[in-house]
Formats: sequence, C-alpha cells, structure tokens
Amino acid sequence: MGATPNLINLLQKQHPADLAQVFSELPEKERHATFNVLVDKNGRLAMEALSELGPEKGAELLALRPAEEIARLAQEIPSDDAAPLIGHLPKELADVVLDLIKPKPGGGVPELLEYEEQTAGRLMNPNVFALGEDLTAGEAITALQGARDVEMVFYLYVVDDRRHLVGVISLRRLLLVPPDTPLKRIMTTDVYSVRVDTDQEEVARQVASYNLLAIPVVDSENKLAGVVTVDDVIDVIKDEATEDVYRLAGVSKDDGILTPPGESLRRRLPWLLVNLVTAFMAASVVGLFTATIERVVALAIFMPVVAGMGGNAATQTLAVVVRGIALGQVTWSNARQALVKEGLVGLGNGFANGLVGAIAVAIVTGGNWALGLILMAAMVINMFVAATAGTLIPLGLRALKVDPALASSVFITTLTDVFGFLSFLGLATVFIRYLQ
Amino acid sequence: MGATPNLINLLQKQHPADLAQVFSELPEKERHATFNVLVDKNGRLAMEALSELGPEKGAELLALRPAEEIARLAQEIPSDDAAPLIGHLPKELADVVLDLIKPKPGGGVPELLEYEEQTAGRLMNPNVFALGEDLTAGEAITALQGARDVEMVFYLYVVDDRRHLVGVISLRRLLLVPPDTPLKRIMTTDVYSVRVDTDQEEVARQVASYNLLAIPVVDSENKLAGVVTVDDVIDVIKDEATEDVYRLAGVSKDDGILTPPGESLRRRLPWLLVNLVTAFMAASVVGLFTATIERVVALAIFMPVVAGMGGNAATQTLAVVVRGIALGQVTWSNARQALVKEGLVGLGNGFANGLVGAIAVAIVTGGNWALGLILMAAMVINMFVAATAGTLIPLGLRALKVDPALASSVFITTLTDVFGFLSFLGLATVFIRYLQ
Repeated sequence: MGATPNLINLLQKQHPADLAQVFSELPEKERHATFNVLVDKNGRLAMEALSELGPEKGAELLALRPAEEIARLAQEIPSDDAAPLIGHLPKELADVVLDLIKPKPGGGVPELLEYEEQTAGRLMNPNVFALGEDLTAGEAITALQGARDVEMVFYLYVVDDRRHLVGVISLRRLLLVPPDTPLKRIMTTDVYSVRVDTDQEEVARQVASYNLLAIPVVDSENKLAGVVTVDDVIDVIKDEATEDVYRLAGVSKDDGILTPPGESLRRRLPWLLVNLVTAFMAASVVGLFTATIERVVALAIFMPVVAGMGGNAATQTLAVVVRGIALGQVTWSNARQALVKEGLVGLGNGFANGLVGAIAVAIVTGGNWALGLILMAAMVINMFVAATAGTLIPLGLRALKVDPALASSVFITTLTDVFGFLSFLGLATVFIRYLQ
Repeated sequence: MGATPNLINLLQKQHPADLAQVFSELPEKERHATFNVLVDKNGRLAMEALSELGPEKGAELLALRPAEEIARLAQEIPSDDAAPLIGHLPKELADVVLDLIKPKPGGGVPELLEYEEQTAGRLMNPNVFALGEDLTAGEAITALQGARDVEMVFYLYVVDDRRHLVGVISLRRLLLVPPDTPLKRIMTTDVYSVRVDTDQEEVARQVASYNLLAIPVVDSENKLAGVVTVDDVIDVIKDEATEDVYRLAGVSKDDGILTPPGESLRRRLPWLLVNLVTAFMAASVVGLFTATIERVVALAIFMPVVAGMGGNAATQTLAVVVRGIALGQVTWSNARQALVKEGLVGLGNGFANGLVGAIAVAIVTGGNWALGLILMAAMVINMFVAATAGTLIPLGLRALKVDPALASSVFITTLTDVFGFLSFLGLATVFIRYLQ
C-alpha cells in the first residue's frame, strides 16, 4: 500500500480508544494488515488499542504475531490490561507466552491469570504504589518522584513493614501539609478495600456507591495486592448492564452486533430450541381443548390476545425486578412488599385491559358478551400470574445465587402462554353453553 | 423515641451512600422522622445522603422542611449535587428556594437549573479550580493550598486571562517538576472537553472511552464553565442502562421496584393498552382464516408456536442491536453488514427450528408431514421477518434521532404475531387439500 506511511502517521496521533474503533470498523483483512504495520511502528500504542478493543477481538489480532514478540508486547502495558488479552489467546500459544514473560515484583500477567475470572484479583493492577507508614509527607513526595510504571491515581496507600494496608492519603492532602508531617498523622485509617476474591460486581458497587476513583485490593492477610481503578469499574458496569439486557432476551454475553453470522447462530440456536420445546408445551395445552375450539372457532381468534398480553405484563415486571436487583434496591425486607405491589399492579392491569378487551370482543362478535367476560376473567388471572411469576422467579434465582436475569422474558412468556390458554380455553369449556 | 440519640450517633458514622440505603429501606413514616432528626444534627451529611438517594425520593424528604432551611441546606453540598434535588421540589417551593440561595462566583444551583436536562451543563460542578497560564508550578501549588470548596480531582485545568481553557496538567506532574517551571511548558494543550449543551450520553462516552477521571465543560466561547467527574458519569451509565432495559420492556424510566402500586399501574397501563390494540390487530389476522381453522382445528394448536418463536428470535436480535447502538459499536458503515448478518441468522434459526418443529408436528399428529412442512416454511418466513425488523426498526429510529430502545420487544412481538399467523394460516389455506 502506497498510502501506508501517511496512514501510520495518522494512526499514531489517535487515542487508543479511537484506534480500537477504527480496528472494529475495518474488514478482517485490512484490520490484520493495519495492526501488523502499527505494531512494528509503535508496539505500546498498538497494545493499548487492543486492550480498548476488548479481549476477544484483541487476542485474535495479537495471535498473528510470534510468541516471543507477544511476550515483549505484553510487558509494554500494565499487567491488568495485558492479562485479559493473553488469557484469550489459544491455550497453547498462551502457555508459551506466559513462560516467556519476565517476573515482575508484586506479580505480573501470569499471577493475575491465576485469580478466578470476574474477581477483584483479575481486575486489579498488581503494580500499585504504596508508602511506608513511617515516612513524612516530604519523604513521600520524594518517593513519588522516583516511582515508575506503577498505578497511581489520586489516592496513595500506606502500608506497614509487612505490607499490610493501614491507611490512605490523597495526593492533594499531601501537598497541603508541611513536609515534616508524619504520614501517620494525616492518613485516613478507615480504608474501603476489597479482597482478591471479591466478585467484580461488588467491587463496582463499592466504587460507585462511595464515589471512589480507585479501591485497593488486599489478600486474605490484609496485605496490599493491587488496585482497581474507576475506568475498570466503568467497563464492569457496562458489561453487567449488557449482560442484563442479553439474558432477559436469551442472548449469550459473547454475542454482539459484529459477531460473524455462523457464531451468532450457534450461540442463539440452543436457546431457541429450548423455547421450541416450551412452545410445544404451550401448544399441547391448546390441544387439550380442540373439542371446545371446534364448537366455538372464535376462541382461536382471541386466545393469542390473552396469552400475549400476559407476556407483555410479565416482561414489564421482570424488567423492573431484575434491574432493581442489579442496582441493589431489592433487600429481603422489601422483597415481600415488592411481591404484593406487583401482584396488585397485575390485578389492576388485568381488570383494566380485560374490560377494554371484553368491550372490543362484544363489538367485534356482534354482542357476544359471554365471550367478552371470559376473556376479561382470563386476562385478570393471567396478568396476576405474570406479575407474581415475574417477581418470584428472579427473586428465587437470586436466593439460589443464580443471576436473576436468567429468568429471561422468553421463558416467562411461555409460562404466560400456558396460563393464558389454560384460563381462557378452560373457562370457555366450563361456560360453553353461554357461548353458542 | 428513647433510642434516638444512639441512633443518631450511629447514623452519623455512616457513609452518605449507606445512609441513603437505610432511608430507602425504612417505611415512609420512619424515613421522615429519621431524616428530620438527622438534618438538625448534621445538615451536610443529611444532604449528601439525599443526593445519593436520588432526586425524586430526596426531594420528597427535603420538601418537609421550610424554604429558608432548604436554601441553607442546599449550599452545604456542591451545586451539582444540590441542583437535581431542588429541581425535583414542587414548583412553587422550588421558586421560593431558588430566590433565597445566595449567588456564587461561577454560578450556583439557579444557574445550573437553566441548562437543559441531560446535558453536560446540568451535570457539571460549576465551581471548578483553574490555574492561570502564566503561573509556575510552585505558584500553582500555593494557589492549590488556598483553594476551598472547589471540585478538584486529579486534573488541574489551565485558563488564559479571559478564562478560555488552554491546557490541563495532572497533580502528579505538578509534584514532579522544579517549582520554577512555567505551567505553559508542562501542560498538555490537547484537552478533551465537552460543551455545556453536550448530551450526557456523549459526555459519558468520552470519559469512559478515554479513561478520564473528569472532563472539563466549556461554553460556546471555549471558556471553562465547570467539570463533570467520573462518579457523575457512572450514574449516567447506570441510568442509561436501566432505560435500555426498561424501554425494551415497555416500562417508563421513573418506574421501579419501590414505586407505589397505583403509580406503577398508571405508568404501565397506557403501554399495555397500546399493545391490546395491536394484539387485536394480530387477532384479526387469525379472524381472516376462521374457515380454514374450522376445517383443520390442529392449526389453532400450532399457530402460537410460529408466532411465539418469531417473537423470541426478534427479542434476541433487538437486544443485540439496541445494546450495540448504546455501546457505540454500530456505525453507518457497518449497519448494512449487521442487517445482512441478522437476516442470515434469522434464516438459519428459521430452518433449524422449523425442521425440529416439522418433525415434532409429524410425530404429534401421527404423520401429518404436510402440516409439519407448512409450519417449517412459516417459521423460516417469520424468523427472517423478525431478524430484519429487529435490526431495521432500531436503526431507523436512531436515524430519526429517536431512542432505538423504544423499538420495544413488546411492539416487535406483535409484528411477529401478525406475520406468524399470516404465513402459517395463509400457507395452510393455500395447501389445505394436503392437510385434510
């Protein structure tokens, strides 16, 4: 490509996040070519861009290079940014690369990858700047000036001689006191911290609730092991939000708008096949009432209304409850209150929609009020079931420590189909003499 | 209450975010009583807790106090935290309070409330610390030591003599250079900034993409007007995620798990009534085919399978596309690619589910392969429609600058009902002689 030198100059002036955007928009072949040119010219920038691109796509590009080079490149960026990329390389390549990475004081990529996924240990930067508790403010500033390649934002963590976390001090506070002030006198000893095995959602909750810019991570002995910064927390919050949306819709978290069609199909099909089974279950309920339908064919016209409206009401309840749980608004003390409330809303919606539906049926059928009343009763029952199931199922899953969003609307919709058909066709069978 | 002094001592030791959690869990009467006691003892802490509680519930508690006191309390916390609370007071009370608030250099609560909702102007803290461009590093540190009640995190913004934003410098960098270094020599002049009228989603996107701790806000003349910090951005990201989940489910953004039943009912009912109309539209499609159903009643059993599976496939596509748009992964250049991809996935899912469905129908009906093939064909058609509509509708809404999440799954489900019934019953009518 003749334009390459100009292109590279242009790329080198971009922020890594913008470069990642460029990479994600290029077709595969050009993406590979552009990455290969950039990585030769500015390895660090290329790695930063891969980190912004996300571990799956980033690892795909990185895997194009030889193992020795990957190991060298991985050490150009902070360990917590490199670890997810290496973790997503093909297993054999990753093992070779991990052996080639030089050990780092405090731990590097290989050590990070030993922590469980989705924990603070995986998320943290282990190379955190810490000050001894016996220093003065002036000595701390001198130490700071010598610090290289460590994560340091606004908080400076203070440790004792065995590296136990004992305090925190802000950079600003350090500036405002006379140089001979002992750190012990000005540090805050009530430090919010998380453990290496704390779930990333809990890490995000604390950073967000307490408006922190970073949170220190300690091991089981309260020794400082690393720091999680707010930018990592933002990624966690976004990922968890995407997971909520996806799970409610029955989509795998690795699926996305740019996932190749074959892969998306492979990821979505199993879920749809599960739903096909449940759809046939709902259909079998209809099958129980073929005799009734044969006598009053209008039932076939209106039964999807009862089933569908129950599904809609269930989707509303589910969204509110799942999001309420995700945002930490649901506690054991108010879960019961929430159930009663959603039940009432379900009944109210059932009566209101049922009434409008009954009138509509009466008009359409030229005065078949009995059919209208049966539709109304079935809607009250089904919307009440929708509301209570939409509340109880996610709350129950949470009690079982399963992600509440797994109570996908797709699943609950089947439940409301079954109850919709059962209540509408069941009532119609009982009161059939008023319908003919 | 005899326990009050102890209770208050206990409350006073809590972080405002934890106090907010306590408030949200207490029944209304006790919440009011606890707030009234706390506000007398520690007005600032009480206000910080209200700010964490969110503007609606916070303003409800604040409205219990006289206007003079509200005005005084509002000035205990940063203007950007106070503004949403005052903005949610009953209009008359808010007007009285705004008149009582003392003007602040740089602007206070009344000025913030003049910016449009959901813009950087509403979100920013106007009392931002800025350094003159002619200062040295040493003079900057002295200025810093005299600064009170200003938002200052890790970045220090540099302005010219008419307060135009000209550079940024980190607190750390300031510490690392000799005191006589001019700021002009060490500041970064490429500053990411947003304008007062920038949408809050764009503010959040920039802070998140570029891993910033704060972003400066400028007016139309590039004068420094305020700063948005990362904790505000986290709140925006969470709110936008909740809105995505809610809109997809047809729930208003002010609804929630703790909203009183009457209010939830009032907010959800209109949406359900709209859907009732569309459900009757789908029912009327079935109505066109009563003659066919009367001849082959098994069609009534299997028609919900075709409709429902289309709805499930549409929900999956919609979740992926809406979230892809929210995360900024969809551009005009790849929208077409996404449409082709989703269409292929829809066809693939239609064939796979249709095949399994056809076999199931043949088994259940004791060998009615014609019915099975019709179900399969209808599922291919309906899942293809589901996938293309699930992609095109949110992309179209985005082109019209309407929130893509408004293409709620509830709405698209009706579309797949209509196409499901139409394709299945339509094909059955055409090929009816093979079915009997």
